[in-house]
Amino acid sequence: MDPDLSDLDAFLDEQDLDGYLVDADSTDSNQYYLSGFDAPDPFVTLYDGEVRLLFHRSLEYGRARREARAATVERSIDYGYGEYSEEYDPHEASYRVLADFLDAYDVDSVAVPPRFPVHTADGLRDLGVSVTADRDETVSAIRAVKTDEEIDHVREAQKANEAAMHAAEDLIANADVRDGTLYHEGEPLTSEAVKTEIEVTLLRHGCALDETIVACGADAADPHERGSGPLAADEPVIVDIFPQNKATKYHADMTRTFCKGEPTETVREWYDLTEEAYRAALDAVEPGATGADVHDAACDVYEEAGEPTLRSDEAAETGFIHSTGHGVGLDVHEGPSLAPSGGELEPGHVITIEPGLYDPAVGGVRIEDLVVVTEGGYENLTDYPVELTL
Amino acid sequence: MDPDLSDLDAFLDEQDLDGYLVDADSTDSNQYYLSGFDAPDPFVTLYDGEVRLLFHRSLEYGRARREARAATVERSIDYGYGEYSEEYDPHEASYRVLADFLDAYDVDSVAVPPRFPVHTADGLRDLGVSVTADRDETVSAIRAVKTDEEIDHVREAQKANEAAMHAAEDLIANADVRDGTLYHEGEPLTSEAVKTEIEVTLLRHGCALDETIVACGADAADPHERGSGPLAADEPVIVDIFPQNKATKYHADMTRTFCKGEPTETVREWYDLTEEAYRAALDAVEPGATGADVHDAACDVYEEAGEPTLRSDEAAETGFIHSTGHGVGLDVHEGPSLAPSGGELEPGHVITIEPGLYDPAVGGVRIEDLVVVTEGGYENLTDYPVELTL
Repeated sequence: MDPDLSDLDAFLDEQDLDGYLVDADSTDSNQYYLSGFDAPDPFVTLYDGEVRLLFHRSLEYGRARREARAATVERSIDYGYGEYSEEYDPHEASYRVLADFLDAYDVDSVAVPPRFPVHTADGLRDLGVSVTADRDETVSAIRAVKTDEEIDHVREAQKANEAAMHAAEDLIANADVRDGTLYHEGEPLTSEAVKTEIEVTLLRHGCALDETIVACGADAADPHERGSGPLAADEPVIVDIFPQNKATKYHADMTRTFCKGEPTETVREWYDLTEEAYRAALDAVEPGATGADVHDAACDVYEEAGEPTLRSDEAAETGFIHSTGHGVGLDVHEGPSLAPSGGELEPGHVITIEPGLYDPAVGGVRIEDLVVVTEGGYENLTDYPVELTL
Repeated sequence: MDPDLSDLDAFLDEQDLDGYLVDADSTDSNQYYLSGFDAPDPFVTLYDGEVRLLFHRSLEYGRARREARAATVERSIDYGYGEYSEEYDPHEASYRVLADFLDAYDVDSVAVPPRFPVHTADGLRDLGVSVTADRDETVSAIRAVKTDEEIDHVREAQKANEAAMHAAEDLIANADVRDGTLYHEGEPLTSEAVKTEIEVTLLRHGCALDETIVACGADAADPHERGSGPLAADEPVIVDIFPQNKATKYHADMTRTFCKGEPTETVREWYDLTEEAYRAALDAVEPGATGADVHDAACDVYEEAGEPTLRSDEAAETGFIHSTGHGVGLDVHEGPSLAPSGGELEPGHVITIEPGLYDPAVGGVRIEDLVVVTEGGYENLTDYPVELTL
């Protein structure tokens, strides 16, 4: 995929800067997006109207020349790293190489992503290069608007996600119940066992994963708790799966909450309310609406029902205690944000809609779909029923 | 595990700095090591003799109070984030919160890891905090020396690695050969299929993985090429597995090279030479020897046999074109380095020994074990035969 970097050109022009510089391995999505190259060790990408790569290690050089979407691919040794390292420590030698590399392309001033390494920035500054942190995250903002090809990558990852969710749901639905605990083939059915089933299913669909959440009872009351131990009957189990396709590197994201047996009245009410908040948030998604508008739609539902939210109390620890959603792409959490600070939605934004309620005394409930903003509103990339009880 | 941070105390003392500051999510191993807390979004850890955490999002706050190994756990809103964000943009508001947090502990000057985010460093500097990049990577150096508990974590990950390697070897050994291609159950046996088998085995042993290398023929000539497509008979297949235990977060690392059928004479010679280099490097491992010494031992073997190395030619693209090894722990690549710049080995260093030869005209051969430096030399944490042909 050739990204459209015209917004980056405009930014550099406007700021009167010569280039945009990234120093990171390709798990940094700005690096992977700009360079089109996948490497486990940090390398440098300069954008000065062309994409130019600089490798410290010869190891990646040959593959980069074959694979990377770049006008030039060079090595530290091409800029005298060997000589510099006789005179200076390895860090200082690499700053000097980098300054010479920039100089070769007449680049005296660069913007860098906010999380660019401070030692490289300081090293370059000491050598007279102007380095400015791009607090507006121009490349991240470009990444947030997906091309049709990128949307297809997300769609493919979400298909794998649906297969994994079905595998998890089947395990829970078909579990035996003894003394309030779920059993599978005579053994207690644990969070860990369901996660393994999910992850094996994802692998067989070409996806890897950072983590998976299968959280029951008090575990589920903490939105980022991964969950552990035997699953209980009659309690909500939050299953949140966010795989990454290994070939394309694009993510998907989906959550369902299941209950094997009879949920308490409170859990049933929470589920229905969360489904209502989820539908209200979905209804608010359209180009021109802001992330804050969508978040407000979910908060309105909860607050009208008397549930606490972070909007009504910034220190709330129970209730709706996270944002309504986030962008999904090369990163599982990226722009835009569906939160009080969330800006205008644009066609091509791929976002989650994921309201939920949490309280250690009750457990947790969350429903999450993945949608893409379109000219006319949104397309839901998720094809999975919204049902609590199994 | 309570890390021994006395070297960090000494460093801060020597540099006359008030604290050490990390701003990262827990995939940053310095962050995980210092904070003892696992979170997917960036948070701040200050070490000023005590470990102190600051969370931007309330979301992680409750869990951090329960789980983190920290003297204090606080939130941005405790330092007036709400008020600041009415006056300033979200970035500036968070710098002001962070400066107030440091001030609350009388911290005016901090060292930060070299890859600390430049925007945070600049934001703090503008508010009068002194921020110095710690080019010596003090925390990484502390992490490089493992406790017995950490070594056990690596050992456990290596057991999973051995199980996965056996699964891969079995697939290749039991493959049928037709027209020079390996077949499994009537289908061509691909690199991808072997990787899936490896990764499913790892998952079932509690490990995750970033990537796996199963590279045959010309693919194998590039040490970082992951490999793809049908595997060939009579050619070397490099299998390099580097899992991470999901519970402990510690890695293992191992490589074997297999050949189903009859290797060419060159491949057989390369294999024997690489086994010789591997044994020479292992023999050189002991406390007081340097990483450079170990690397030299491997280079000597190759160069005496007339093979090019990066030591003899820094621009070499065939031959022995990487270092002899690296540390393994929370990161799969960490200190110490077994390369020309590699410093003194100490008991507790966990390192790979992994010489190899590469040439697109021949393919690649690599043998890699994982060992821990001990008072008396080293203990090999790898229990897997060294054999080329299957």
